[in-house]
Amino acid sequence: MKFVIAPDSFKGSLTAKQAGDAMAIGIKRVFLNQTPEIKVVPQADGGEGTVQSLVDATNGQMLAAKVHDPLGHPIMAHFGVLGNRQTAVIEMSAASGLQYVNYQTRDPRLTSTFGTGELILAALKQDVKEIIIGLGGSATNDGGAGMFQALGGHLLDQRGQELIHGGAALKQLARIDASSLNSRLNQVKIKIASDVTNPLVGPQGASYIFGPQKGATIEIAEQLDLALKHYAAIIKQDLGVEVANLPGAGAAGGLGAGLLAFTAAKMCHGIELVIEYTGLKHQLQQADVVLTGEGKIDLQTKFGKTPFGVAQAAKKLVPQAPVIALVGNIGPGIEQIYQETGIDAIFTTPVGAKSLPRALSEAKHDISLTAENVARLIKKMSNFR
Amino acid sequence: MKFVIAPDSFKGSLTAKQAGDAMAIGIKRVFLNQTPEIKVVPQADGGEGTVQSLVDATNGQMLAAKVHDPLGHPIMAHFGVLGNRQTAVIEMSAASGLQYVNYQTRDPRLTSTFGTGELILAALKQDVKEIIIGLGGSATNDGGAGMFQALGGHLLDQRGQELIHGGAALKQLARIDASSLNSRLNQVKIKIASDVTNPLVGPQGASYIFGPQKGATIEIAEQLDLALKHYAAIIKQDLGVEVANLPGAGAAGGLGAGLLAFTAAKMCHGIELVIEYTGLKHQLQQADVVLTGEGKIDLQTKFGKTPFGVAQAAKKLVPQAPVIALVGNIGPGIEQIYQETGIDAIFTTPVGAKSLPRALSEAKHDISLTAENVARLIKKMSNFR
Repeated sequence: MKFVIAPDSFKGSLTAKQAGDAMAIGIKRVFLNQTPEIKVVPQADGGEGTVQSLVDATNGQMLAAKVHDPLGHPIMAHFGVLGNRQTAVIEMSAASGLQYVNYQTRDPRLTSTFGTGELILAALKQDVKEIIIGLGGSATNDGGAGMFQALGGHLLDQRGQELIHGGAALKQLARIDASSLNSRLNQVKIKIASDVTNPLVGPQGASYIFGPQKGATIEIAEQLDLALKHYAAIIKQDLGVEVANLPGAGAAGGLGAGLLAFTAAKMCHGIELVIEYTGLKHQLQQADVVLTGEGKIDLQTKFGKTPFGVAQAAKKLVPQAPVIALVGNIGPGIEQIYQETGIDAIFTTPVGAKSLPRALSEAKHDISLTAENVARLIKKMSNFR
Repeated sequence: MKFVIAPDSFKGSLTAKQAGDAMAIGIKRVFLNQTPEIKVVPQADGGEGTVQSLVDATNGQMLAAKVHDPLGHPIMAHFGVLGNRQTAVIEMSAASGLQYVNYQTRDPRLTSTFGTGELILAALKQDVKEIIIGLGGSATNDGGAGMFQALGGHLLDQRGQELIHGGAALKQLARIDASSLNSRLNQVKIKIASDVTNPLVGPQGASYIFGPQKGATIEIAEQLDLALKHYAAIIKQDLGVEVANLPGAGAAGGLGAGLLAFTAAKMCHGIELVIEYTGLKHQLQQADVVLTGEGKIDLQTKFGKTPFGVAQAAKKLVPQAPVIALVGNIGPGIEQIYQETGIDAIFTTPVGAKSLPRALSEAKHDISLTAENVARLIKKMSNFR
């Protein structure tokens, strides 16, 4: 009997690999003498945990680089190189995420993706052929301007002065000079892992939709939206690229637009990229049971989160195998999940009534116990003894 | 596909029937057009909820009677008559339970089973042929003396005066007069539902083992044990019955001994009685899946609690059917449960991390959702679509 275990991380408690290993422990308890074949393939959706899962799944390496946070303070940020040594993976939030600002310091007029550009430079130094960049969790609204500057590009005002960092300064942009952009950039493929389809500007754009969670008032969102509109116009004027309304250009405060404008990046679905690079489809061959999971499952899940992607892949390759999601919690409105995702059953992992802090600290034990009982039922149902 | 649902109550939230109905709702959600056959057979183990489950399972009736609580205050207490109209069922705790005393008022020297005797009288008035009496949860340590007095018996001291209520007064017992005992008592069978095997007296007896939880200090336990020893000696002298060391005589503060001494009662396993009277074995015929459950499962469960009894019955009658327990919580040390009980898998019902009060108030929804997902997995595994 072959189990494929492909969960996302359980936010706040376990990485995807730790969660998968916990499930494997539970399954092994059930089969005593007949050791089942168990493949743990950590997954992610392009958001938090993507670097860790891809490194874990491919036996790659975590690296650290000294970069600048959204407000310009020096930090150490991590990125990954996959086991193939050809592919680097970066989460933009590792350098430019919301965790570096607080209610006092957050200001999407000033925050910059400069650190993300520095992370890309660090990845280029590893002589990789490909860089995956996960968007999401950004504290920025600068359209990827800071990233461009870190990579050697120049954003100049009327007087030929370099713009200061932050989305608000883009209003002053007069000319884009990409001539001194890092030359290695042309030699790598860049894949953007994102599930956001918002355009750069307008009522569905970065500033209005994601600005508020980064500290923008309505007035600031309006100011930032105008700045990004101007930025898009100069990009079109100087580079001939139309980014304002591309789907996904509004992801990560417009970093999507910056990557599409300044590099040959391709926009991809996060979970599909992860499935590809972790070799999940190969592992799914001959699977009898597929386990997936994440911290919380809800209606969002049908929009490209990990259990959705895993279930879709499994349904195509091994339609007879049950796909079971083990989750920390089930949100409202999941009635549609089963039919639309292909997930056959969902079990929550916290054992008994307990507080969230306790549930997080006991997640490993509880995930093992839940997986064990799922395996017990499956064993009984399949008369596999 | 036939589901038999036979849970105990979920203490603090749902009766056994309510829990079973919640499971049924979840199962029905899965099968859409093909309505599965679902039998809900509420169970109990002789403890709290036994009357309710037997009444619910047999379409019987709940009745109320005015009786006296352990300290002599008038209360309304309930008992049941099963659907056959032949069998009454009483929980001794309904009249003589710990819920009627608190830390200030509890005193096992004074508390009496008089109210339990009154409940038996009320049951006799229903012209039943059989009375099931569930022991457990008692606030008393009087050896069933109060019950005997309520039924018309006399416990007399040296001067021929009736003893006052409570276990301590038994020290003064000189003579037992059973001549005016209610005459109907001889015309009914009495079955004691108990899982306690303790003797009446000695270090494993009622006073030392169960006295402390009723408020006895070591000194009081010693005093009560001596009183029960004297009581047993007078029972032997006047009635020729040896109850001191009978297994189960120590249940419910020695009410077991009193029932065995003064009536033709038979000691039975609680869950076995309930299985018999609810017709569970008949319902289990042709079952494809058996669901059971209770508020909490732990090592105790292998000592005759409901999921154990249900699993044992199911394993004999429908060995191919998985037996699944849905429980509010899983206690430590359950590794042995699976093998020793025949339960195939256990799932906890609270969905996500939540406080106990919230888990109790959301139990119905959560039990339905857990049952639904169990049914989903079973449906997928059995390719029953």
